[in-house]
This record gives sequence, C-alpha cells and structure tokens, in this order.
Amino acid sequence: MTQPSSLAIVAGAGAGLGQSLLSRFEVEGMTAVGLGRTRPINPIGTFLEIDLADAEATSLAIAELIAQHGPPKIVVHNTAELVIAPFEKTSLNDYQRTWTSMVQSLVILGQSVLQPMVTGGGGTLIVTGATASLRGGARFSAFASAKFALRGLTQSLAREFQPAGIHVAHVILDGIIDTTRSRDLHDLDPSKMMKPEAIAEAYWQLAQQPPSTWTHELDLRPASEGF
Amino acid sequence: MTQPSSLAIVAGAGAGLGQSLLSRFEVEGMTAVGLGRTRPINPIGTFLEIDLADAEATSLAIAELIAQHGPPKIVVHNTAELVIAPFEKTSLNDYQRTWTSMVQSLVILGQSVLQPMVTGGGGTLIVTGATASLRGGARFSAFASAKFALRGLTQSLAREFQPAGIHVAHVILDGIIDTTRSRDLHDLDPSKMMKPEAIAEAYWQLAQQPPSTWTHELDLRPASEGF
Amino acid sequence: MTQPSSLAIVAGAGAGLGQSLLSRFEVEGMTAVGLGRTRPINPIGTFLEIDLADAEATSLAIAELIAQHGPPKIVVHNTAELVIAPFEKTSLNDYQRTWTSMVQSLVILGQSVLQPMVTGGGGTLIVTGATASLRGGARFSAFASAKFALRGLTQSLAREFQPAGIHVAHVILDGIIDTTRSRDLHDLDPSKMMKPEAIAEAYWQLAQQPPSTWTHELDLRPASEGF
Amino acid sequence: MTQPSSLAIVAGAGAGLGQSLLSRFEVEGMTAVGLGRTRPINPIGTFLEIDLADAEATSLAIAELIAQHGPPKIVVHNTAELVIAPFEKTSLNDYQRTWTSMVQSLVILGQSVLQPMVTGGGGTLIVTGATASLRGGARFSAFASAKFALRGLTQSLAREFQPAGIHVAHVILDGIIDTTRSRDLHDLDPSKMMKPEAIAEAYWQLAQQPPSTWTHELDLRPASEGF
Repeated sequence: MTQPSSLAIVAGAGAGLGQSLLSRFEVEGMTAVGLGRTRPINPIGTFLEIDLADAEATSLAIAELIAQHGPPKIVVHNTAELVIAPFEKTSLNDYQRTWTSMVQSLVILGQSVLQPMVTGGGGTLIVTGATASLRGGARFSAFASAKFALRGLTQSLAREFQPAGIHVAHVILDGIIDTTRSRDLHDLDPSKMMKPEAIAEAYWQLAQQPPSTWTHELDLRPASEGF
Repeated sequence: MTQPSSLAIVAGAGAGLGQSLLSRFEVEGMTAVGLGRTRPINPIGTFLEIDLADAEATSLAIAELIAQHGPPKIVVHNTAELVIAPFEKTSLNDYQRTWTSMVQSLVILGQSVLQPMVTGGGGTLIVTGATASLRGGARFSAFASAKFALRGLTQSLAREFQPAGIHVAHVILDGIIDTTRSRDLHDLDPSKMMKPEAIAEAYWQLAQQPPSTWTHELDLRPASEGF
Repeated sequence: MTQPSSLAIVAGAGAGLGQSLLSRFEVEGMTAVGLGRTRPINPIGTFLEIDLADAEATSLAIAELIAQHGPPKIVVHNTAELVIAPFEKTSLNDYQRTWTSMVQSLVILGQSVLQPMVTGGGGTLIVTGATASLRGGARFSAFASAKFALRGLTQSLAREFQPAGIHVAHVILDGIIDTTRSRDLHDLDPSKMMKPEAIAEAYWQLAQQPPSTWTHELDLRPASEGF
Repeated sequence: MTQPSSLAIVAGAGAGLGQSLLSRFEVEGMTAVGLGRTRPINPIGTFLEIDLADAEATSLAIAELIAQHGPPKIVVHNTAELVIAPFEKTSLNDYQRTWTSMVQSLVILGQSVLQPMVTGGGGTLIVTGATASLRGGARFSAFASAKFALRGLTQSLAREFQPAGIHVAHVILDGIIDTTRSRDLHDLDPSKMMKPEAIAEAYWQLAQQPPSTWTHELDLRPASEGF
C-alpha cells in the first residue's frame, strides 16, 4: 500500500503519540513530517512550527510539502486541546478554542491534502478521537462537543472520499497515553497507560488495509481500563 | 410539573416547530416567549428579535425575562443552520456559522437559564437534534459536525445538571417537518412530513416527566421514513 | 388514536410495571388483559395464566381474545428473566431460559398479534428493554445477550411493520423499578427508583403518537441514576 | 504475543474466511485447528468435524486439543447461520437454529477455552459480527436478533476476562466476503467483495495487540460499500 519515501504528515506532532507515529512511518522509509505549534525536543523527521487552525499558513506549508514530495500517503490528525471544567466555569472562549484547535484544523488539513491524495492515487487519513467522542461527561462539555464534532466531520469525509479511494478512519483512544506529561499529570501506574508505540502500530496497520477491507472506526484502550 | 403562568422560552422560534412549541405551551397557560433572528408573521406569545449567538444581547434579554416572570420551567433550543455541500465547496465560514448558530447559542442559552432554573426549583431543557446528530453523511460535513457537537454538549449538560433537578433531553428529528418552507423546498408528499404540532406534543410530554422517570434521548420520525 | 373499549394486551403482567400498564390502559376505557406465568394478587382487568414461551397456548389464547374483542390496539412485551452470574457459573440452561422467556416469547406474541393489528387498521407494540440492551456487562452475559437479541428483533419488526401502520417501539429502562420485590432485593432508597405509574404514562404517550411522528427508541431513568 | 507452535482454533472453519484464518495462523508457525459441521475440500491444518452447538462433543474435542497442544493463544468464533425472510414466514425453529448456531456455540466455546487460556497466561478471542449486529433490518429478524445477542455476549466476555489477560474483540463485517459461494449467490462484482485474506490479516493484527492497547470492536467493509 505505502511506498517507501512517500510522504507521511502528522498534524499535531508533539511528544508522545505524534512523535511515535512519525517514528513508525520513518522506520518504513517514509518521509515523516510533523506539524504543530510547539517543536518537541529532538523531533523525528522534519518538524514545521505552525498553527494548524491558521488556514493560510497551514495550506501554504502543505502545498510546499506536496510540491517537494508529492501528495502524502498517510495523514494523521492528532491535535488536542483539553478543557475540564463545570459548565458554568467554561467560557465561550474555551468552546471556541477547543473547536478551532480540533475541528477547524481538520477542515483546513482535509482541504489541503484530500484532493492531492485523490489525484495521487489514494491514501489514508486517520483522525484521533477519545472517550469523549462517544460520551459527553460532566465537566467535559467543551472537549466532548469538539470531539463529537470531529467524529461527525470524519464520518462525512469517509463517506465523501471513499469512492475516490481515500481511506478515512476514526480511532477512539479510551485511556491515558503514556507520556512524560501524563506521568506528571495523572496519579496512575504507567503500566495502565497506553504505549504510544502500540497506538502508532495500530495506525500503521490501518494505513495498510487494502480497499477491499477498510476499518472506519476502532477503539483502543488498556486492558486495565473499564469500559 | 409545570405551573400555569410559568415561563417557557423557545430559542429559535421561527414559523414551524418553534411557533408550534410556543402555541403548545401557551395552551397550558404558560407565558410563551420566542427568541430568534427573524420575527415570524403573527408570532405566538412574545417574540424577541435577537441573535442567539450574541452572548451579551441574549443573556441580557433572558435576565430581563427572568426578572419579570421568574426562571423558566421549559426551555427549548431549536436553532437551525443547514449547509449541504461537498467538503471541497464548504468554506471555513460555513463551519463556523453552523457551529456558532447551533452550538455557541446553546452554550449562551444554557449559561443564561440553567442556574436560575436550579434556583427556581427545576425545569426542563430540550435540545433539537437531527438525523445528522448520529450520522455524518456525504455533503453534510458542516451540519453534521455541528449537530454531533450539540449532542455531546447536551449529554454533558444532562449529566451535570441532573443532580440539581434539571431535566435535559435531546430529541432526534429524523424527517422533514411540515412547514410552508419545507413544502416549497422538498418534492415530498406532505403526508410524509412530521407535523409540528405532533413534535410539540412530544416535547410537552418530555417536560411532564417526573424526576423518577426521565428520558434523555428519543427519536421522532414519520411512519413513512426509512431508518 | 386509541378507542375506548379496544383491547390492550400486556405480555408479562406481574406486579409492578405490568399491572401499572394495565391500570393505565383501563383508565382510558380499554379492555385490559394481562398474560403471564404467575397471577398477581388482585390483578387489574383480565389475567390469563399462560407460559408465553409456549407457542400453542399463547397463540390460542390470543386468537380467542381477538375473536372476542377484535385486534388489540396496544400490545406490550414485558417479560423478564434475570440471571446475574460469572460466565463460568452461567449454564447453557440459563442462556436458553433467558432467551426463551424474552426473545422466543416476543416472536410468538408478534406472530399472534401483528397480522390481526394490520388488518384492524394499526396499533402499537412496545417492547421493554434494559440497560443491558445496550451494554454487555460483566456477570450479565445471559441477560445482556437476550436483551440485545430482543432489541435487534424489535428493530426488524419496526422496519417490517411500519409500512403497514404498526408502531413498534423499544423502551430502555435504565434503573430499578419501584416494586415491593425491588424494595426487598435492593438496598436502594425507593425515591431513587422508577415509579411504575410514570413508566406506564410514557408507554401510553408512545401509543398516542400519530404516524407522522413516531418514536422508535427512548430511554427512561431516574434523575438519580448515573448514565 | 503469539508464539510459534502455539494453538489457534477457528470455530466455524468453512471455505472462505475460516480457512483463510487458519492459513494466516499457520504461516506464523501456529498449530491451526478448524472446527465445523462440514469438512472443506483440502482443509488447512487439522479439521475436526463437530457440531459446535453440541456442548459435550465440543468441550471434549477442545479438552483433547488442549491436552495435546496446551491452551490456545488465538480462538476465533466464526459460525454463521443466515435466515432472510419476512417475520411471518420465519419459524420458531429458524430463531432457535440461528441462536443455537451462533450464540450457544460461543457459550460452549468460551466455557471450553477461556479458563485454560487464563491459566496459560492469556490470549485472544475474536468473534465475527455482521451489519446485522448493529441494525435489525426488515426480513432479518432471526439473523439480527442472534447477531445482536452475540455482540452482547461478547461484550460481557470482554469485560469479565480482560482483568485476567484475555483480549476479547468483536469484528463487524459489513459487506460480502469473496468466496466461491458468494460469487454464486450474489450478483455483485467480486472486486466489491471483501477478500478473506485481508480480513484474516485484520484478525491477526488484533491478536498481536499488547495489553496496553486493545481494540474491542472494529468494523471492516469494502471501499465500495455504503455505510
């Protein structure tokens, strides 16, 4: 499916899952490019500092990547903007920010990569969801509404671009990803966290599925996580 | 549950369902107030022309209503902003507009009414969903992502305000509502459209449920509609 | 929708919800008939002791009812057979018994009433589900698999009989019903249990929906129940 | 995860997916054993003719396999019993047969393999679902109710055996599998059918997931299939 040296883009490529995805793609010989607001220390492959909610900057950067490397074969949308607060303490700005970071950024990304991918003969777009994609919990109103929106948008993209040979998949991450930051934030035994390398492997396998047998949604959670 | 002369607010009170809801509430002796951008001809009860995505204007208008009539016992969120277009032809502005009209307006409405309703001893908030709340179809990316977001937000509100005695329900309208505008737009036998009075009755029944037995989500569709 | 003196049948009419349903229907002037294995003390309306998993006995009894009263306008399927046990301790017989009591009984009931209801000009069939209709929990494998099956069967019936004017609805009861038996079994404040009269009211309202606006699934739970 | 020479069992190992699964497992050096009523021509690995709804025969055969090879590392439940008919033409026997073939057989299989797998240090059980696992369509009442039941049962098994290190996953096959039989039955371009080898690959990947990152449900469908 995926040729060595073809382009893989991870939008939202911070330390943790983003970098593990780039690493997984690079191992296969792909040209791995990460996009995001904050450059991680020693980033894998190429990293472009960019605000993914900025349509002009993002579409320009991606157009340049495509001019140089051809249309991407794998694109991952992996931006995150978590707000946890009671409804009364969640500001309009919180709602706008989570929506802009997670939904508007997928619109911009999709409009930058999908048509070139169609022209380039196909490819895979994977969108990272969360528990909150399926359940609006108390104190998660901003985050859940944005993650729900992202899922609806991803379904529309899957149905619209499937006939043109683009595989669009939504992955529900139901658990804490094991990163330095998670270990600081959560009082949880790291053995109960999802390893970013294992998630990256699942994304890679999605991108290897032939058109006869595509997954449009799957969940991933630690064996230790109730569900 | 609902006392005569208590306040009922319909946010998004255009001709069709909005007006039928106000009529249903007025029949019960409630003070029916519609809010929306465009005043319908001969509106039921009081109609306030207001942009529901404008936080300041909306919260001020609702504060005045509450000062005059006490906290509402029934509030319906019923704004609509339909966009149907291929992804490539859907602008960022389309996404922002559907989100602002449908999701931001519920945040503003909720932050204006919920705390007074809690103080006032309870009440019901009903949010109008659509087929696109559960399924992101081709050419519905903007509308579906906003309707998904609305559902996630509504679930969070239900879980957060349930302990305080507020019943928050989401209604999935899976069909065309029979209005003058629908009859012009759709080449569909009106006998296959949902009658706004029948939908209003279902909303009224939701508001009558005692706390021992609350519905949080139901669907409504014509007998003629495949599903 | 429902004429006085028309027939209402509740299959699974024990003390609690079954009897409350019959009472609600009788108040409207309907001829209320309960079916079930065990006659409750002072049953509402007519009670026929019958094993609802017995095809011959059930279809014969219903044929006689129809000969006498005409086809039913409302039929409720409300049989219950709860098994809670670890998978290793759940016998094949447990699986067969829950399935036979809940699923086979709906097949037999449907094949006895649906065609006469079509001929009689329509009516409503309501099927009682549970939390376990949507979620297979640990130690609920027998009960959940039967309740899932019941939901699948109900959906097929809804889609098959909708064009013929039969409204088939599935109600998810997510909480403990307040009965003498529940109060003995559960160490739960009865104020946190669902009142059978309130559930019966919701069923009655379903049966009143006009064909333009049918609900096919709704949930009911106490305000005190997490979800 | 999976050691060469460890045991893989496919219950429902006919021509098509069953045989492709055995082939995929054998390629990895596993001992591949197929179970089923009808021996395919030139079966992969070992094939035992057995009625999987027969508790005694099945548990005995599996106990012998375990005595010989140790507990299985991968077990797939893949029995099928399709009935398509209007509700009025579907007999009680049809319902019993689909349930027995698909649900009872999983109970028997699970009670034969799960405890040994726990003792053996873990493993993966994969259950094959269908479109009808999520949607009860017209004329599918028997098949859908059994597939719904299977999904509920699988969820209970997943939740119950996850803490003991067993990965239980449900795969929704939403499309026609490309087999000789499908090509005869369906007037569908084989390029629009799912290749059994590709499905087998997805099952294999599920069995490779580490406990930090388990999928409990995924869908598989051809790019050509609407959803």
